[in-house]
Amino acid sequence: MPIADKIQNFLGGASWIRKMFEEGEKLRQKYGEENVYDFTLGNPNVEPPQALKNELKKIAENPEPGMHRYMNNAGYQETRNAVAQVLSEESGLSFRPEHILMTVGAGGGLNVTLKTLLNPGEEVIVLTPYFVEYKFYIDNHGGKVKEVSTQDNFKLDLDALEQAINSCTRAVIINSPNNPTGVIYTEEELKNLGTLLDKKAKELNRSIYVISDEPYAKIAYEGFNVPCIFNYIKNSIKVTSHSKDLALPGERIGYTAVNPQIEDAGEIMAGMIFCNRTLGFVNAPALAQRLITSLQRETVDIEAYQEKRDILYDNLTRLGFKMVKPQGTFYLFPESPVPDEMEFIRKAQEYNILLVPGSGFGKPGYFRMSYCISKKIILNSIPAFEKLAHDMGMA
Amino acid sequence: MPIADKIQNFLGGASWIRKMFEEGEKLRQKYGEENVYDFTLGNPNVEPPQALKNELKKIAENPEPGMHRYMNNAGYQETRNAVAQVLSEESGLSFRPEHILMTVGAGGGLNVTLKTLLNPGEEVIVLTPYFVEYKFYIDNHGGKVKEVSTQDNFKLDLDALEQAINSCTRAVIINSPNNPTGVIYTEEELKNLGTLLDKKAKELNRSIYVISDEPYAKIAYEGFNVPCIFNYIKNSIKVTSHSKDLALPGERIGYTAVNPQIEDAGEIMAGMIFCNRTLGFVNAPALAQRLITSLQRETVDIEAYQEKRDILYDNLTRLGFKMVKPQGTFYLFPESPVPDEMEFIRKAQEYNILLVPGSGFGKPGYFRMSYCISKKIILNSIPAFEKLAHDMGMA
Repeated sequence: MPIADKIQNFLGGASWIRKMFEEGEKLRQKYGEENVYDFTLGNPNVEPPQALKNELKKIAENPEPGMHRYMNNAGYQETRNAVAQVLSEESGLSFRPEHILMTVGAGGGLNVTLKTLLNPGEEVIVLTPYFVEYKFYIDNHGGKVKEVSTQDNFKLDLDALEQAINSCTRAVIINSPNNPTGVIYTEEELKNLGTLLDKKAKELNRSIYVISDEPYAKIAYEGFNVPCIFNYIKNSIKVTSHSKDLALPGERIGYTAVNPQIEDAGEIMAGMIFCNRTLGFVNAPALAQRLITSLQRETVDIEAYQEKRDILYDNLTRLGFKMVKPQGTFYLFPESPVPDEMEFIRKAQEYNILLVPGSGFGKPGYFRMSYCISKKIILNSIPAFEKLAHDMGMA
Repeated sequence: MPIADKIQNFLGGASWIRKMFEEGEKLRQKYGEENVYDFTLGNPNVEPPQALKNELKKIAENPEPGMHRYMNNAGYQETRNAVAQVLSEESGLSFRPEHILMTVGAGGGLNVTLKTLLNPGEEVIVLTPYFVEYKFYIDNHGGKVKEVSTQDNFKLDLDALEQAINSCTRAVIINSPNNPTGVIYTEEELKNLGTLLDKKAKELNRSIYVISDEPYAKIAYEGFNVPCIFNYIKNSIKVTSHSKDLALPGERIGYTAVNPQIEDAGEIMAGMIFCNRTLGFVNAPALAQRLITSLQRETVDIEAYQEKRDILYDNLTRLGFKMVKPQGTFYLFPESPVPDEMEFIRKAQEYNILLVPGSGFGKPGYFRMSYCISKKIILNSIPAFEKLAHDMGMA
């Protein structure tokens, strides 16, 4: 074998999302951009806020000497200051730059965090349905994935969690607002989770961390807000990126913040800075760090996403699809009208509708729709969904 | 333990280079910037070529819609095309974008390559003295580091290499021009290495790869050139970055290229693109990719580095220090005048001279000097070296 056996096997079961994306490319060439309803990729079609464009111009017109050099592996002091200040305001806790690591997106931050925490064979709990990449990230660093179900409405199932925690548990990854369901955990849910983890940590005499993956934290819809994890769970590490809130996924910029209330916060940060270096990230891209420093309070247009959610939610429920109404993100996670969601997805493809199977998220019988695409394509897709629903005997 | 035992242990023996850097900060505050002779960090003090600044302005003034979005995990087609074209010209081989992966610097590229290739416990040969980070990179992906000595002049020792290769060997990392020695391997050396690897691969019935880490490839001095690895070693993978040749280390931009002559080039590339995604890099930063696309033929001022080498080499040899004259990079790797180089380094510190011990590169009894600093500081350091040499009884 020219490459490692494990990678060879992974390649065999390559990412469904990517497969569907390639299928989409073919269909787009055949039928034209606007007649293919591609709900597969979480690649925002919106532009970053104007403030970001201004910032880039400012940097380009007055390039500071040394601005492309290495900085501290943790990132620029100024950038970490700006993040710490916003987190302090949000949480009422005292965040300092020493609690912040600038990272190569949330993907980078999650790998760094997991590498820092995991001894060989330790378990990381993920809540189904979950973001596909978690299982690779955990496996990268010798950890074991432990899947725990959520409730029917995708809320935390604390009983299931309690049963799953054992003397090998190192961390729980939560993701709220959730990809793929769009669900946001409430203050009460997080409080109860914190209480449970405290109890189990005492019982088992070990630290159990919550790794809170929050790239969608700013994309919360009317009537909902995302509680600040640091106020409810002491052993919490927030991992996030500006891929969605500033629409910069290609720039690979995010940060990881350690709860200042963790006794060993300093040691965890030292470990993370080390792992950021030795995993080959070295530091978050310099230009991107400069770009986002003054933009910590900026966000892309949330209302536009909410409008898209409403169009799809209203129409799909009208057609008989069942789903939890998303409270944030730009995903819908409806039930498949037939038990085998692949059968449904293949049928949808006949109508140029591209979807991702729930199995990829550890939840068969469902499918994911990503609606960070143009409103026009979303509107165009409704008649196609009508035909599809009719074909499936739903209407 | 709040963090993984292994990381805890690594932290105990934290990077010498960083420790010295922090020592330098203290001294600089006490004695002033120009009176501390800090030869520890490989962070170029030169600015990127003017063409890069122009490119950044162009991008900022006419931002293309979508320019911050995800692209193919391998990078922009246009960027990979530009790299492939230059590599085709250099090698006479037919490189296509399908042979190129844009990476988060060479650190990212090395991790991606090692993850793609290594089965648990397989060995990777590194040649002492070697870049400190290799051992972490290899360990990240379950590999075993096998150190093999070079000759006294730091040239390849093919007999030692032949003895070290066994049925667990997966790859040999070479680094030419070399950090820390400044040595460039000749065509003949590479040819002989290729022949040896072909022979051993046949004997052992397995593929053995040369991972050629080449961030300094364009920093070669008068009278020397860096032979194109692809022409001498079939199973070769080039890993490089624009950290040194375009002075962009903070931007984390580089690429990895697979020799088109490898039979399984397609499978290796597929594995690398997968690992680039799942290690959390996802893609090389979008802006940096755009910046370097048209700059594949640009380089920082090599003559300035050569002048600095000459000042240091001439003066240090005059004072009795013994070293191989660097043919490229911006490093010198002299012998310590006393067997324990730490004794010497501590003495040098008394004269505000900061050096890195050879032990960190697997070569005790030597020290590394990085001369990517201002000419002024280099000139200021000479009287300090004179006093140091006198103190050591050398002159």
